[in-house]
Amino acid sequence: MLHFSSDYEKGACPEILNALLKANDSAFSGYGTDTITASAKSKIRKACNCPEADIYFLSGGTQTNSTVIATMLKPYEGVISAVTGHISVHEAGAVEYTGHKVLTVPEHNGKIDAIELKEYIENFYNDGNHEHMIYPGMVYISHPTEYGTLYSATELKAIYSVCEEYDIPLFIDGARLGYGLMSKDTDVSLEYLAKHCDVFYIGGTKVGALLGEAVVFPKNNAPKQFYTMIKQHGAMLAKGWITGIQFDTLFTDDLYFNLSSNAIEMAEILKSIIKKHGIKEFLLSPTNQQFVVIENSLLDKIKDKVTYSFWEKYDENSTVIRLATSWYTTKEDMEALDNIFDVTM
Amino acid sequence: MLHFSSDYEKGACPEILNALLKANDSAFSGYGTDTITASAKSKIRKACNCPEADIYFLSGGTQTNSTVIATMLKPYEGVISAVTGHISVHEAGAVEYTGHKVLTVPEHNGKIDAIELKEYIENFYNDGNHEHMIYPGMVYISHPTEYGTLYSATELKAIYSVCEEYDIPLFIDGARLGYGLMSKDTDVSLEYLAKHCDVFYIGGTKVGALLGEAVVFPKNNAPKQFYTMIKQHGAMLAKGWITGIQFDTLFTDDLYFNLSSNAIEMAEILKSIIKKHGIKEFLLSPTNQQFVVIENSLLDKIKDKVTYSFWEKYDENSTVIRLATSWYTTKEDMEALDNIFDVTM
Amino acid sequence: MLHFSSDYEKGACPEILNALLKANDSAFSGYGTDTITASAKSKIRKACNCPEADIYFLSGGTQTNSTVIATMLKPYEGVISAVTGHISVHEAGAVEYTGHKVLTVPEHNGKIDAIELKEYIENFYNDGNHEHMIYPGMVYISHPTEYGTLYSATELKAIYSVCEEYDIPLFIDGARLGYGLMSKDTDVSLEYLAKHCDVFYIGGTKVGALLGEAVVFPKNNAPKQFYTMIKQHGAMLAKGWITGIQFDTLFTDDLYFNLSSNAIEMAEILKSIIKKHGIKEFLLSPTNQQFVVIENSLLDKIKDKVTYSFWEKYDENSTVIRLATSWYTTKEDMEALDNIFDVTM
Amino acid sequence: MLHFSSDYEKGACPEILNALLKANDSAFSGYGTDTITASAKSKIRKACNCPEADIYFLSGGTQTNSTVIATMLKPYEGVISAVTGHISVHEAGAVEYTGHKVLTVPEHNGKIDAIELKEYIENFYNDGNHEHMIYPGMVYISHPTEYGTLYSATELKAIYSVCEEYDIPLFIDGARLGYGLMSKDTDVSLEYLAKHCDVFYIGGTKVGALLGEAVVFPKNNAPKQFYTMIKQHGAMLAKGWITGIQFDTLFTDDLYFNLSSNAIEMAEILKSIIKKHGIKEFLLSPTNQQFVVIENSLLDKIKDKVTYSFWEKYDENSTVIRLATSWYTTKEDMEALDNIFDVTM
Repeated sequence: MLHFSSDYEKGACPEILNALLKANDSAFSGYGTDTITASAKSKIRKACNCPEADIYFLSGGTQTNSTVIATMLKPYEGVISAVTGHISVHEAGAVEYTGHKVLTVPEHNGKIDAIELKEYIENFYNDGNHEHMIYPGMVYISHPTEYGTLYSATELKAIYSVCEEYDIPLFIDGARLGYGLMSKDTDVSLEYLAKHCDVFYIGGTKVGALLGEAVVFPKNNAPKQFYTMIKQHGAMLAKGWITGIQFDTLFTDDLYFNLSSNAIEMAEILKSIIKKHGIKEFLLSPTNQQFVVIENSLLDKIKDKVTYSFWEKYDENSTVIRLATSWYTTKEDMEALDNIFDVTM
Repeated sequence: MLHFSSDYEKGACPEILNALLKANDSAFSGYGTDTITASAKSKIRKACNCPEADIYFLSGGTQTNSTVIATMLKPYEGVISAVTGHISVHEAGAVEYTGHKVLTVPEHNGKIDAIELKEYIENFYNDGNHEHMIYPGMVYISHPTEYGTLYSATELKAIYSVCEEYDIPLFIDGARLGYGLMSKDTDVSLEYLAKHCDVFYIGGTKVGALLGEAVVFPKNNAPKQFYTMIKQHGAMLAKGWITGIQFDTLFTDDLYFNLSSNAIEMAEILKSIIKKHGIKEFLLSPTNQQFVVIENSLLDKIKDKVTYSFWEKYDENSTVIRLATSWYTTKEDMEALDNIFDVTM
Repeated sequence: MLHFSSDYEKGACPEILNALLKANDSAFSGYGTDTITASAKSKIRKACNCPEADIYFLSGGTQTNSTVIATMLKPYEGVISAVTGHISVHEAGAVEYTGHKVLTVPEHNGKIDAIELKEYIENFYNDGNHEHMIYPGMVYISHPTEYGTLYSATELKAIYSVCEEYDIPLFIDGARLGYGLMSKDTDVSLEYLAKHCDVFYIGGTKVGALLGEAVVFPKNNAPKQFYTMIKQHGAMLAKGWITGIQFDTLFTDDLYFNLSSNAIEMAEILKSIIKKHGIKEFLLSPTNQQFVVIENSLLDKIKDKVTYSFWEKYDENSTVIRLATSWYTTKEDMEALDNIFDVTM
Repeated sequence: MLHFSSDYEKGACPEILNALLKANDSAFSGYGTDTITASAKSKIRKACNCPEADIYFLSGGTQTNSTVIATMLKPYEGVISAVTGHISVHEAGAVEYTGHKVLTVPEHNGKIDAIELKEYIENFYNDGNHEHMIYPGMVYISHPTEYGTLYSATELKAIYSVCEEYDIPLFIDGARLGYGLMSKDTDVSLEYLAKHCDVFYIGGTKVGALLGEAVVFPKNNAPKQFYTMIKQHGAMLAKGWITGIQFDTLFTDDLYFNLSSNAIEMAEILKSIIKKHGIKEFLLSPTNQQFVVIENSLLDKIKDKVTYSFWEKYDENSTVIRLATSWYTTKEDMEALDNIFDVTM
């Protein structure tokens, strides 16, 4: 079976498993107070060129999103997201569970637009009834988005300018950040991103780790007592070094970036396979996720040979599916996929 | 000054003030356990023809909406509302504050459509990822809607059928229920409405009371310990008889309906004035709220003579405003308004 | 029947009813933006000698407590209360419902002790695990307490000094504030109280109003967007002037204080009746609530003649009851009570 | 350095690391839908002799406690705990954050008493004001407790009988369950425990796993849509098999029990060392945690040789510390500890 269903179908990269093995005989202080976790933070600060950054390690994306959003918003504030934003649709109402509304703006291939964002906020403040409404208190974007698309440096800067104008923090969900940073078609570096937002996270779960997301507050601007609120959200691991070790490894010798680059290279091959076979494109992204329209009869033929994600019904006879490459995708996988299409189409 | 800005610009109808005065020398047991509150419940049960109904008195619309919704939903459930629903827009996120998402469907002059509702729910259950999403757990409609429009008996029945099919309770916000029931253009009676939903409230604040909304669970189906949860929401008055007396009065000698009828009669005159003066119609409703487009220069001329509600900007030169009649609007008010338009237009 | 069960068994004082009647023909702008509400605030500012105070009118005690506490605490903070504090025991978990823990300290006739308070906070910060615990973020006291007892000026100052030392706001629940201020045995004036806390409320429901509590932030220190959060808590009346008029009346010609004085005078008579008849004292307070131990056989004899509050079982044969005087208690009531005891004991 | 500070100072047992390594080349479906997770559940069902049990894997204790409690309580209910219960003190208000009050009963070496529990519940229902109070909706106990103590089979049965009488679920926090089950002084088996509660969890983090707790609903009685609510709490791992593999390993060849037994054996040696050296006992428990009183001057001498947990100040000159053995404690560790005391005392 070939695996293109998601980027989290396999465990950890070998370097991380080795590091966990190596550390297994040592004892550590709990709750992330250990020295390896400190080392990981130091390496991430360097990679972001944010020497003052506050960094925390959490376990997964939904947990990170709801903890960051709930602790940065006031009770009268909500978070602005694209209608397709992960927090708006696929996190089981985790943000609302903490008492906050997700305010939605239109999406364009998963992205929000700085001008529409500004209009949303302006309209809010111009509304005579706005004191009876939820205030925009944060902007959430994902980079890459849920569609694998990316903000350009100019677009990101424009969004952040709106945020700064209205004194609203910008939060970037980087569950797949590595795949965005290593795209052939991006001018956004980790340093640039860190300079143009108030908080973001570097996804580990989808980029080589067993689990773990690194939340970065670039300007030493974590909410007061964020540590206690992590605990309150049930998001603190007793053995905090488990995530610490993983990020320490990922940020040694550019491993995080190299793992990500592999997925990008395989995605480039994937796009050429899609084009070669004339598969109907739904959305080909500059990162590791590609969306295509496949006839249902063809899906029947390949479903025992390759995993994919159902995205949505396209019409009576065909379906939008997602094919994702990952840090563990190999050239042999790509050749095998090519062969499957050779045979079935 | 003429008052058409809303239906809550004046205190209580004389009958209610008299009843409060008359009761003022007597002592009552607290928290709604008194005999007048019991009498009010009994009269409402009779008016609804629901002899088994559970009835509770709360203070205002937002309070009632959030208390009912929060106590009837499970944590994994949200409430479906028109995008223009009051709970979705103008209640300061009160529903989300209780941990629940407001799920939105399209609006048609403020109303939702049974077929679109069914599609929304079907799509939810057909979505392979729906276990990562908020379940539809209640349907909220307002009758009259925020635009003064009304569901026909057929439309209401169709919506309730969808709710029954999926075992989802239907909640009807009746902040202006009287104005809906007394409309010239409705075939929905109080009894019919009570039979075609799981919970609704009869608005007092906007129909002759100082404050107060009567929540009706027609089938003896209030959530367990609803009384305690009213207290938990800060929604219980120590002097519960203050609302009890008001509803006891409103449901004596058809007062609630007569007060409502007055607003409807005045609204019919209002619509004829609008037509007589050729004022651009935005939405003329069958209840007490009428929406028209007025040139800004004309607004300047009338703003010191009549109160109105700004609704939204129409274009550079004109504005949508709401004119509302009420239980306290008089024929003299209508003549005076007619004169104002005579003079200014 | 004589009424000593509570201080909220009757409606409003005549002055308030007259003011409501007088205002009933006028129209007002909604949500507390009217001129009478502004006048009430101005009079309260003057009475407190706090010209910069922010003032808001809510409907009842539990609502006020949970709204003030929830909007002033950070997510990692809880509110310190006496174990017998109303918020700790009798508000149906309204504070916890907003996500915050009630942290308890010992009570002494309903009061907390400044030294014990300081020890609690010191112990918290000295605990090596305090980052895994809820931070003390507010101190809540009631004045009078649930037992009718009062803090002396020295005691209040000592508590406030602890709060200032740790930068924790002090919130005073004044549901029965008038009865405290008019006690024969107090050296705490309204002005002194306002100077020695960060927020308090002046109870109307129990001192002559139909409903209403005036929340005072003496130092112009209301939480940002408090208005919106009142709405979010379902605590905003559309007809805000209903509470505004009542407080405007209460703070005209010292009415609030005169009503309170009546209860105190009657309570002094009540205490003399208790002593005259040799009724076992449980706790005689300097305000309007008196607690006595009565044999169950005697209770049986008086229960059809006088209302009282069951407080707790004393032993197999007797019960602690509360007898409360109020703004509406008359000398004739006291004589009648005296007679009842003459006959039955 | 010797490690007696806690039972979570080291990573995973070798068998778990091997299993993770072995599985690392395979692909798995996400969110716990994989076959190894299914195998782990099957093995746990067998070990508990609960063929119908619902089982879910979460990451840590606080997360598990708040998710289970929040999803099983109604809004008007709280959870009863010993005052020393972990949820009451050391989880940063995680339960209150979900809107629920922790109701406390006295502790006896960390345990609650069935008779006192029954009295608490009876008193609640006998209180005339109980509708203004939080209902007891669940009983929480830890086994072993925070002091390492254990309920006897008789005690557990008595508590469960009270729960059954009042139809209140019993939840057992088994963060250290293995150490309880393998104690020399227990008559409570895993099967017995599963039969005498409504939900419990089997702690992995403190018994050989990197992370992970197995929540068991023995009677197929998980709350409806528990899966979605795990997601909502941010408690769902994308790579669910990471916890699945660990529990599959722990419940193969009695590994969980054998690891636990090691800690117990080492604890027996620890207790003999304590006695041999005449160290003042604070509380010697039948499980892996022992509490002793040590002079501060002695603590200074050993602090660079052995880790321990500060528990509380005993008096001016001495301190209560906790020494914990674990699955990774060796006989050599015990000898070394003995030597340290030989030298320093």
